[in-house]
Amino acid sequence: MELKNKSQQEITVKIKDYTFEEFVEVVRSFHGFEAVGILIGGFMVDEACRLLPQGGIFDALCETPKCLPDAIQLLTPCTIGNGWLTVVNIGRYAFTLYDKETGDGIRVYLDPAKLELFPEIKAWFFKLKPKKEQDLARLLYEAKTAGASICGTQRVRVPHRLRDKQHRGKFAICPRCKESYPVADGESCLACSGEEIYEQVPSDISGEQTLTAISTSYQAS
Amino acid sequence: MELKNKSQQEITVKIKDYTFEEFVEVVRSFHGFEAVGILIGGFMVDEACRLLPQGGIFDALCETPKCLPDAIQLLTPCTIGNGWLTVVNIGRYAFTLYDKETGDGIRVYLDPAKLELFPEIKAWFFKLKPKKEQDLARLLYEAKTAGASICGTQRVRVPHRLRDKQHRGKFAICPRCKESYPVADGESCLACSGEEIYEQVPSDISGEQTLTAISTSYQAS
Repeated sequence: MELKNKSQQEITVKIKDYTFEEFVEVVRSFHGFEAVGILIGGFMVDEACRLLPQGGIFDALCETPKCLPDAIQLLTPCTIGNGWLTVVNIGRYAFTLYDKETGDGIRVYLDPAKLELFPEIKAWFFKLKPKKEQDLARLLYEAKTAGASICGTQRVRVPHRLRDKQHRGKFAICPRCKESYPVADGESCLACSGEEIYEQVPSDISGEQTLTAISTSYQAS
Repeated sequence: MELKNKSQQEITVKIKDYTFEEFVEVVRSFHGFEAVGILIGGFMVDEACRLLPQGGIFDALCETPKCLPDAIQLLTPCTIGNGWLTVVNIGRYAFTLYDKETGDGIRVYLDPAKLELFPEIKAWFFKLKPKKEQDLARLLYEAKTAGASICGTQRVRVPHRLRDKQHRGKFAICPRCKESYPVADGESCLACSGEEIYEQVPSDISGEQTLTAISTSYQAS
């Protein structure tokens, strides 16, 4: 990573257990590129963890699907796949880490009022210039300099409807597609009882099953 | 990781660039525990990649939020945060990696008809016994032995409505919460114009803002 200001580059800034430069590499490896939104999100997660009681077990509620969920997944145990991270798409750059039992937690948001000192972050955040005109080195420099100073924090309580986990109950074999599905979904799986999610295409992979070629009569015991 | 059968443990089984044992560690680190669903998912992703044209750029569509998204996030460039992974919750243990441009891709699903040789996987998959009675070492052993043999593959086409990305357009400052939000959402952000997603709690963190204490008059330029 190139930073414009050498003295800035030499300052060690931490995001959880990573240095800023290490976290840039982690983000690049996981997310495909050094998305500045995840770097800023890293500082936001670090800030939330700092304000939460040590040793607690927390779930995450993220208010945007853009970038921020990846910061949460990389820096906390909460992932989409383990169900400890929920994404509600209301378009705010904010998330909450909260106690699973009580719902009490810390919400961290990017505060537009604090962006005046960081014009490249402001331009990125508000899409004030086309992506190809963004100065990536400057963005990284500003992100490292800003840290969590561009965020605000709130104490909030996540209501039951957003924190109660849905348990699927038993599974059965769908009579149409012959795959397993949650019995609670009805007499066939949601894909077969509702709108087909795929368009059919002819199969030309040798030995491969096509959408219509499945005729296994297996029934789950 | 303990495997019951020493000779089995010595066999090198690969999941993309990892050995099975390395991937167990990666899963434990990311997901919090060695979830067998992600290990099986790892073989499924490996199988999809094997069947796809080399060098293509693929997005992912996952049919369940349980475990499988994490296998996709760990083994492909597709994540929730970069928008290349979409999760539709229709309860089938399946996903598709597809060409961004054409929608053509490979769907891989766990095939219940192929689980007879793997009773511990079958018991886990169909929730036939309580979690505390599951034999984790046996599950890992069966997962390593089964590999992608318990999966089926299909050539499918993902329709436009599921693969077209929604671009948010411009952002503005919400007049109520003073945070940024997509202008297309209306005169205020979805959280402020709809149901408040948090319950309010008194603030007792020194210097911390409460939900009602934000009064910044900043306007985005």
